[in-house]
Amino acid sequence: METIIKIACRDEKGLVHKITGILFEQMVNVTQTNEFVDEDSDRFFMRISFTGTCDVEKIQRQLLDMLPAQAEVDIISPKQKRVLILVTKEHHCLGELLIKYQYQDLNFKVEAVLGNHEDLAPLCAQFQVPFHFISAEGLSRDRHEELLDEQIATYQPDLIVLAKYMRILTPQFSLKHRGKLINIHHSFLPAFIGARPYQQAYNRGVKIIGATAHFVTDDLDEGPIICQEVVPVNHTYSAKDMSKAGKDVEKIVLAKALRLVLEDRVFIHQNKTILFE
Amino acid sequence: METIIKIACRDEKGLVHKITGILFEQMVNVTQTNEFVDEDSDRFFMRISFTGTCDVEKIQRQLLDMLPAQAEVDIISPKQKRVLILVTKEHHCLGELLIKYQYQDLNFKVEAVLGNHEDLAPLCAQFQVPFHFISAEGLSRDRHEELLDEQIATYQPDLIVLAKYMRILTPQFSLKHRGKLINIHHSFLPAFIGARPYQQAYNRGVKIIGATAHFVTDDLDEGPIICQEVVPVNHTYSAKDMSKAGKDVEKIVLAKALRLVLEDRVFIHQNKTILFE
Amino acid sequence: METIIKIACRDEKGLVHKITGILFEQMVNVTQTNEFVDEDSDRFFMRISFTGTCDVEKIQRQLLDMLPAQAEVDIISPKQKRVLILVTKEHHCLGELLIKYQYQDLNFKVEAVLGNHEDLAPLCAQFQVPFHFISAEGLSRDRHEELLDEQIATYQPDLIVLAKYMRILTPQFSLKHRGKLINIHHSFLPAFIGARPYQQAYNRGVKIIGATAHFVTDDLDEGPIICQEVVPVNHTYSAKDMSKAGKDVEKIVLAKALRLVLEDRVFIHQNKTILFE
Amino acid sequence: METIIKIACRDEKGLVHKITGILFEQMVNVTQTNEFVDEDSDRFFMRISFTGTCDVEKIQRQLLDMLPAQAEVDIISPKQKRVLILVTKEHHCLGELLIKYQYQDLNFKVEAVLGNHEDLAPLCAQFQVPFHFISAEGLSRDRHEELLDEQIATYQPDLIVLAKYMRILTPQFSLKHRGKLINIHHSFLPAFIGARPYQQAYNRGVKIIGATAHFVTDDLDEGPIICQEVVPVNHTYSAKDMSKAGKDVEKIVLAKALRLVLEDRVFIHQNKTILFE
Repeated sequence: METIIKIACRDEKGLVHKITGILFEQMVNVTQTNEFVDEDSDRFFMRISFTGTCDVEKIQRQLLDMLPAQAEVDIISPKQKRVLILVTKEHHCLGELLIKYQYQDLNFKVEAVLGNHEDLAPLCAQFQVPFHFISAEGLSRDRHEELLDEQIATYQPDLIVLAKYMRILTPQFSLKHRGKLINIHHSFLPAFIGARPYQQAYNRGVKIIGATAHFVTDDLDEGPIICQEVVPVNHTYSAKDMSKAGKDVEKIVLAKALRLVLEDRVFIHQNKTILFE
Repeated sequence: METIIKIACRDEKGLVHKITGILFEQMVNVTQTNEFVDEDSDRFFMRISFTGTCDVEKIQRQLLDMLPAQAEVDIISPKQKRVLILVTKEHHCLGELLIKYQYQDLNFKVEAVLGNHEDLAPLCAQFQVPFHFISAEGLSRDRHEELLDEQIATYQPDLIVLAKYMRILTPQFSLKHRGKLINIHHSFLPAFIGARPYQQAYNRGVKIIGATAHFVTDDLDEGPIICQEVVPVNHTYSAKDMSKAGKDVEKIVLAKALRLVLEDRVFIHQNKTILFE
Repeated sequence: METIIKIACRDEKGLVHKITGILFEQMVNVTQTNEFVDEDSDRFFMRISFTGTCDVEKIQRQLLDMLPAQAEVDIISPKQKRVLILVTKEHHCLGELLIKYQYQDLNFKVEAVLGNHEDLAPLCAQFQVPFHFISAEGLSRDRHEELLDEQIATYQPDLIVLAKYMRILTPQFSLKHRGKLINIHHSFLPAFIGARPYQQAYNRGVKIIGATAHFVTDDLDEGPIICQEVVPVNHTYSAKDMSKAGKDVEKIVLAKALRLVLEDRVFIHQNKTILFE
Repeated sequence: METIIKIACRDEKGLVHKITGILFEQMVNVTQTNEFVDEDSDRFFMRISFTGTCDVEKIQRQLLDMLPAQAEVDIISPKQKRVLILVTKEHHCLGELLIKYQYQDLNFKVEAVLGNHEDLAPLCAQFQVPFHFISAEGLSRDRHEELLDEQIATYQPDLIVLAKYMRILTPQFSLKHRGKLINIHHSFLPAFIGARPYQQAYNRGVKIIGATAHFVTDDLDEGPIICQEVVPVNHTYSAKDMSKAGKDVEKIVLAKALRLVLEDRVFIHQNKTILFE
């Protein structure tokens, strides 16, 4: 398996030469490199994958010494990421993730599923994945999130996937888990922000609907977009038909975004993502 | 060539049977029928194409006698529609339409092109299509539209195509030509309404951009959508790259929407379209 | 729920008028009609859905009396279709169908799964669906199909879905179950007929791969196509990467084709399908 | 404008480090780098774009000295490529290229158009591009290609684009101009190789059609694929309707492939292309 290095820093001449030099010295076998410079912010991004044993700490130190100040360097050892999934009632995204987990179509471990309704407990049981019912009934939003956070504290997941979790998160919760929260929004953002996007799409008479997987930030539906896909519709579609047609796209887009994040192919930069596929 | 009947009326039982009965009596050769009932509004839509000679006025009378009150019946004889094109500076949509006009890839006649800038006069000259320069320089919006309307009054077009016409029309102008005005908006509406949609898309970090052909109503960018298409983009695209990538989609979508309208396949119903393809 | 009428017959004038007349007399509530005439073969196809009670046998008799000779008339009462699924080792299509069955995203009953390998027995157990292991080990093709046919005779399914069943069927078997056998082929047919289509696609250096759901006939990979979809690939994809990328398309296309068949929206005509969506 | 370096050679460790080192010494401003290693053939590909003045010959010498034996190194100075276009009767691809040439949507110069029919002479005249009518009437294939080659010798084009040139080229001609000949094939290769692909697609009842831009080699329709795109069709499409629907895809795909080649983003490797977009 591969080790991944992710670097983000101020751009300057010769970075690729110098970075690859450090790896060349270590005699590792580089399997892929990707670079990108965001010209608006003059920021350099690089992802390197390599096989072979090496002194990771030494490479990290050498990179930080050589790179411009405030560089971010992540050296990610090959290990399976641990994921918590948050759900409400809809099964299609959860089902997709559980199947892909069971057969390791995606390289991750589903630690547990947290649901604010009980509907999906049986599905989790079928896949022998712990399900925790955390009702929001009669609780303040803050109190409910405290209960979620207790579970999150227990499992210490690398990622938290909102697989059709239909409650709005507080900015505090979103900030606390920033960079770890992936949501699937059932519209082609930024169209139809907010509630009932398929009803909105129906009302507007659009000819294409879509789904958007994105990181969650404190600003609802405004976080960095990872993946989007669309599906054609027409005048014969009711809002309910659009919702049905959208479900397959939702689950595919969410799984695709998750794969990119699990493979450490995604950089978050300001309100955007950089994907090295 | 085919005669087209378009019917829109309150739904009731037996409409298809009764309508096709009137045509059966006339012994015409029906080549295609399409029906749709919008359940929200309980409204019935039907398009029939047929070949063969018949007494059009009699059919129209029989249909109106038989159909529920306030039915709309259009019997459209096979003739080429006449089109005015409004442009500003960008050539890609106009070029597409002129090529398709010259070779009759679309069954229409381009009567003339009106431009609020002179840039596209030479392109029109290449295709021997009259170009009228109607500068908005120093004019009120109303006065400028008066000048447009003079030309429109002269040409009496069946349709007016806004082929990247970059001025906002007044509600009065839009209302006056309601149902005849087709616009291409360079975004996947309703995302990025208003000015500079590609810059907005770039700022938002979307992974797909699109274009929307729609009828123009008094509410800017809110008219009934005819066609939409999309194209994938990624983090390496600047706003300018997105704009370039979008141009091919814009022209294809506009031409496709125009074809549907020229073939009388489009019904406008409230703020939506019904397309019988 | 709706009753469906499917009619296929020689084309002649007035068919729509006469057919809808018979239904109008019965005072049922027609919810959708679709018609198509194949001009090459001069054949008329119509699908009508309606709600309300009526004398089905009388309608059938009236239609057959009125329609041209050798007309095919199916009046399909609303009931859930029963399906057998054949598999080998790959789980992705089966998983998709089992999830959609469990939650009735598709209106069908999975009677049982037959596998020529045992790999997918546990997945069926998770969904409490009977799995029958019918090894082909050491058997002639004919003998193996006899064993399959015993199960088919037991379950009397309306449809048999080959969900990545990786054995070639004999023409006899295919003919016997003609019109009931739906296969997913992992290429964009007719490209890459036969074995290992992703390896073929890789070798050819294509930039798009796809999947095709089709009815099975006696001619391998040549049966009537129901649905096709594609996904972009590039030079960085190995044959294995293409295979992975194709799996999501395969399962979505298969489920979509199955939905159309379950909803009686598909006519088979010669080597093609007519879809009334 | 940018200078481009294209390198193809046997893979070995440290290539990126060494190559970027040579450029770093020259103090040029690298704007983009892309690398790929084809593992089947153990071959390394790199594209570098940079701005700034430098000693091109020195860089070329240093690279060749440093790289493994038989490395290919192209240093491409920023200049407009010159293109000959070959056509028969269909206007849509030629029209697209002429519009894009006139407005420099693509960075190229159309030197002349050669046609084996006269039909498109007027279109070239509209765009003030020389048209040479080279009839094949009564000539052997070899003799006709000699006449083409005379014009090619006169214009010395960087690229020759077959924009719906409907004659089969001899292997000799294809070999002679290998790497310079770009063709648009009106199908989703390798489906429907050979004549009348839309008729073939119609006969097969496919639900998606496509177009393929590829380099021409001595093996008809088998050259390295550059770009492919598709468009959905259904049972209502005649072969002629498919042909119409395909035209827009053909011209867009051809223009896209041409852009990639004009920007030196395409490597030919065996029978495939590597695209650095």
